[in-house]
Amino acid sequence: MDRAAKLTPHLDRIASPADLRGLSDSALGDVAAELRNEVIESVATTGGHLGSSLGVVELTVALHAVFDTPRDKLIWDVGHQCYPHKVLTGRRDRMATLRQEGGLSGFTKRSESQYDPFGAAHSSTSISAALGFTIGRDMGQPTGDAIAVIGDGSISAGMAYEALNNAGAEGRRMFVILNDNEMSIAPPVGAMSKYLSGLYASPLGNLQQAAEGFEAALPGPLRDHARRARQMVTGAVGAKGTLFEELGFQYIGPINGHDMDQLLGVLRAARARATGPVLIHCCTVKGKGYAPAEQSADKYHGVGKFDPASGAQAKKRPNAPSYTKVFGQALSDLAANDPRIVGVTAAMPSGTGMDIFARAHPARMFDVGIAEQHGVTFAAGMAASGLKPFCAIYSTFLQRGYDQIVHDVALQNLPVRFAIDRAGLVGADGATHAGAFDVGYLSALPNMTVMAAGDEAELVHMVATAAAHDLGPIAFRYPRGEGEGVPMPETGEVLEIGKGRVLSEGSDVALLSFGAHLGECRKAAAKIEAAGLSVTLADARFAKPLDHALLTRLARNHRALITVEQGARGGFGAMVLHTLAQDGLLDGKLAIRTMTLPDRFIDQAAPDAMYADAGLTATDIAATALQAAGADAEMVLGALGA
Amino acid sequence: MDRAAKLTPHLDRIASPADLRGLSDSALGDVAAELRNEVIESVATTGGHLGSSLGVVELTVALHAVFDTPRDKLIWDVGHQCYPHKVLTGRRDRMATLRQEGGLSGFTKRSESQYDPFGAAHSSTSISAALGFTIGRDMGQPTGDAIAVIGDGSISAGMAYEALNNAGAEGRRMFVILNDNEMSIAPPVGAMSKYLSGLYASPLGNLQQAAEGFEAALPGPLRDHARRARQMVTGAVGAKGTLFEELGFQYIGPINGHDMDQLLGVLRAARARATGPVLIHCCTVKGKGYAPAEQSADKYHGVGKFDPASGAQAKKRPNAPSYTKVFGQALSDLAANDPRIVGVTAAMPSGTGMDIFARAHPARMFDVGIAEQHGVTFAAGMAASGLKPFCAIYSTFLQRGYDQIVHDVALQNLPVRFAIDRAGLVGADGATHAGAFDVGYLSALPNMTVMAAGDEAELVHMVATAAAHDLGPIAFRYPRGEGEGVPMPETGEVLEIGKGRVLSEGSDVALLSFGAHLGECRKAAAKIEAAGLSVTLADARFAKPLDHALLTRLARNHRALITVEQGARGGFGAMVLHTLAQDGLLDGKLAIRTMTLPDRFIDQAAPDAMYADAGLTATDIAATALQAAGADAEMVLGALGA
Repeated sequence: MDRAAKLTPHLDRIASPADLRGLSDSALGDVAAELRNEVIESVATTGGHLGSSLGVVELTVALHAVFDTPRDKLIWDVGHQCYPHKVLTGRRDRMATLRQEGGLSGFTKRSESQYDPFGAAHSSTSISAALGFTIGRDMGQPTGDAIAVIGDGSISAGMAYEALNNAGAEGRRMFVILNDNEMSIAPPVGAMSKYLSGLYASPLGNLQQAAEGFEAALPGPLRDHARRARQMVTGAVGAKGTLFEELGFQYIGPINGHDMDQLLGVLRAARARATGPVLIHCCTVKGKGYAPAEQSADKYHGVGKFDPASGAQAKKRPNAPSYTKVFGQALSDLAANDPRIVGVTAAMPSGTGMDIFARAHPARMFDVGIAEQHGVTFAAGMAASGLKPFCAIYSTFLQRGYDQIVHDVALQNLPVRFAIDRAGLVGADGATHAGAFDVGYLSALPNMTVMAAGDEAELVHMVATAAAHDLGPIAFRYPRGEGEGVPMPETGEVLEIGKGRVLSEGSDVALLSFGAHLGECRKAAAKIEAAGLSVTLADARFAKPLDHALLTRLARNHRALITVEQGARGGFGAMVLHTLAQDGLLDGKLAIRTMTLPDRFIDQAAPDAMYADAGLTATDIAATALQAAGADAEMVLGALGA
Repeated sequence: MDRAAKLTPHLDRIASPADLRGLSDSALGDVAAELRNEVIESVATTGGHLGSSLGVVELTVALHAVFDTPRDKLIWDVGHQCYPHKVLTGRRDRMATLRQEGGLSGFTKRSESQYDPFGAAHSSTSISAALGFTIGRDMGQPTGDAIAVIGDGSISAGMAYEALNNAGAEGRRMFVILNDNEMSIAPPVGAMSKYLSGLYASPLGNLQQAAEGFEAALPGPLRDHARRARQMVTGAVGAKGTLFEELGFQYIGPINGHDMDQLLGVLRAARARATGPVLIHCCTVKGKGYAPAEQSADKYHGVGKFDPASGAQAKKRPNAPSYTKVFGQALSDLAANDPRIVGVTAAMPSGTGMDIFARAHPARMFDVGIAEQHGVTFAAGMAASGLKPFCAIYSTFLQRGYDQIVHDVALQNLPVRFAIDRAGLVGADGATHAGAFDVGYLSALPNMTVMAAGDEAELVHMVATAAAHDLGPIAFRYPRGEGEGVPMPETGEVLEIGKGRVLSEGSDVALLSFGAHLGECRKAAAKIEAAGLSVTLADARFAKPLDHALLTRLARNHRALITVEQGARGGFGAMVLHTLAQDGLLDGKLAIRTMTLPDRFIDQAAPDAMYADAGLTATDIAATALQAAGADAEMVLGALGA
């Protein structure tokens, strides 16, 4: 496609949102049309969250045109729909760097722009943050109105409900835009979703929308009268018409989120007249205006690079199956012979591989929606009833269910199986999606067993081990992306709980790997051997319980012991240190080092580049090991080829 | 009061719930009356959650009479209202041991009885668990119907909403009893609470109740007709009458939870006819039937021992102010000169000392309800607007907001101040309320500063330090209960971030304390000195950032270094180990030990007894230090007076 063919005369005049405010309504429509093309062409070269961004093009233009950003605080929930917002807020010339090393984040980010007052990436935080800014405004801080834009999937999370409940009771002027596209990543689930569909799918829908656009522009008393009248017609009857009104919000809608006149009319009226919390129910189409996205099942939620003319996505040929698929298939295979196995996902069936399980066992997969707190305790209830629940949640999202893991699972010693995908650094999604903390926050818990897969064959064994482990909770973590390409077992082997394995025996340096950095440790071992020291390479498999015999052997028989993991301090390495200290194995001359993620958040880049940034390459490991073992500087440099 | 004066002929015949099922309705009323007296007299001798238990006496009898427990799964949310349930389910003769060492838990607990299918103590978990059992039933596990009993405060938490949303969509037969007493601990807040009051406070309330009791017993079509008719009268109009119906539940109520006939009628009808999820809205009075409780502001939510005749509670004279009060007063004092300070509590104003702050600064304290997820991000929003939020949440409940701490606070480096009360072991509330994990799960986070108060004067300094620290998030932890009785400063001193303090200098053994075990370390130091070794006693103050200079000095100049903390592995000791390992300070002959809570949950007892159980007495510390320092057995035994 010829970039020059798409002229953008209107968009070119918008250096910042202030430039929108002098334009006619019709010119704003022109800006939106050009903005949509710009986003399509831009994401075609970078990949990213296309569908969500296309759904809010008109809304983005209208919000910036009507509200006084950045003084007014516009808070995008999740933030993955922010590409049009980034184009309008001074980041247009950097859109080609989206989600790349050193480039723009794929989400909103405070450090990137004053127009991003509250960053995101996890869902359902926007209303809470908006209420915080609202209090700040009312207490004299230099901030205007707060506007949260939240999707119908995100608003089904408990956190959003807590925020609505609190904001409704506070009664302060603030705005929530419910961006209802009936899709989060997968089609939404849950009763709230059905309820929202009901509001929208009224047989008088068109009349309702037109009427609301009109009513909202009316002076107060007349508007209220008109509104009551309409509600009596459309069936949303009663003094309290909708769930949102019952929670204390003034409800306006549903309106058509692609009709610029309607958007501008409603937003202007709301801004002019709101005295308390207002919810504007805005219906949009994910992927709007780009046929390949609109016609796709997932509406191009997240895409790689693609051809803008055809929509054809460039697919990289994988070298090995992804960990995610290996998990899904392994679980599905086991479940064929074990009717007690059930699966839980929190709105991520395909991201977690639970879709593979669900295709084989549709009645045994439960998608609870964006509801990790409930999902974990629901799994605990199923375990208490005698089932074998596998709760598949990304490491970073499992943080949402932490108290439930402590209080409902670990304390009661219930055999919930946690399949923790996206452990470690994840690439383009950046710091918000890193799975850095799970080993620490799980290993601290009594009764918990914690494993990490050294490669994709190990993952198959760990799924089998988890299925067989009925004595208490067990978790296994594995990274995003492809496996190592190792030979795959026909069936998983049930591992002995708390036993590691030694891959090669040496006498100077011991490398003790936990998880998917095993391959990097193998490379490090070769470098160390090249420097003339002999290396024991071991895969701990378990962070909890630890393999005492193995630890003792490694500590006693080597000059240096190096632990390596794809996680933060306080995790595997910490458990090893505690144990060795307790056993007196640190009292002697052993040099020990724990290699973990550093004490800072790592921005997006290719995973290898992120681990290099983190100081966790094979070279880093070898250098650390050699220095700990007392190698002289020359030997170290020689071994590392420097 | 003469125990013998209260005869309990009906209650005496109830060995288990099955014995209730043959009784007449009127005899069940007699059991309830006797049960109420029994609970009052029992709690008078033990202390406990009296008000909540008195509110559900009739409901407890009715539920066990109508449902087939333990095959049917009765799940009490929070579980603090379970005393009548315990009396009826085989634990009557152990009620005098309630909340005491070796005795009955103050909550439901799976290991205690088959009638406690899912234990609790934190709120809002019951509906999730009930849905889990419901799936188990539908997949052939040997379980009957699941019934969750949840209070109006607990149902306002996001987790309960997530569960309602999922259960409503699943559409399976299960029961939720909304126990609406318009009180959780404090009067409830939030829009949901107002909404529930609206349902109850209809001017036709009595009629409504009577009508519902009647309707529910009718055959299906007639019942629905009657119900629609009534709703048209009472104002809960529309095809979808209540928020619960909008979420997919059949709503029955409100009914009078102290009217045994109504309770039995509604429960029997519901059990006989339900095909999907049913919510029964049951209105009760906290403290019902005991005048001193009904007349008290907190309805005797949690009481010490008391005189059953007068209700007079035995108050222990404190030796020192509680940490909670010291925090509340210190924050209140600082706020008098700093208008940017605001407070956040999640339904615990008095438990956290925020009530003290609120009395002085009522417009600056925000009680968000049982909503820790929202509360944390709400505080983050306030911090982003320029305010100085102090988020006061117990250690164990802060687990509910963990992802928000990671994603909204730490990642964005926003200066939210976390005041973490109830750190460490807490006494009678037992394992579910222990604050064991916060140091680990917070210290792992980049940007976070983590402090713990060695005594109540230190707490005053830490409040001042947190208020002054505008660079990023900061947390300070302190225990339940009284301080040490140390002299209190006039005003708090702003501590240097990351600097510990040395309390006494020695040369053999270094004791490095983090937090409120400092007093125990002082005693341990005396024991070690008595054995002839010289001791350095230091208070780390910070787990993050650590005091490198202090650590280096302690590691280099002592034979043994012992860290002591009131928390689990992966916390302060782990951070010390990681740092010493990285700096090469473990390479030599230093003997290091990290004393933490053990890797098991500790049952309720007096806090000192719990720490003895945990192996964290002064004697334990001294013994560990002496053995690490290479003292011979005789010297150790001599020092410890054994």
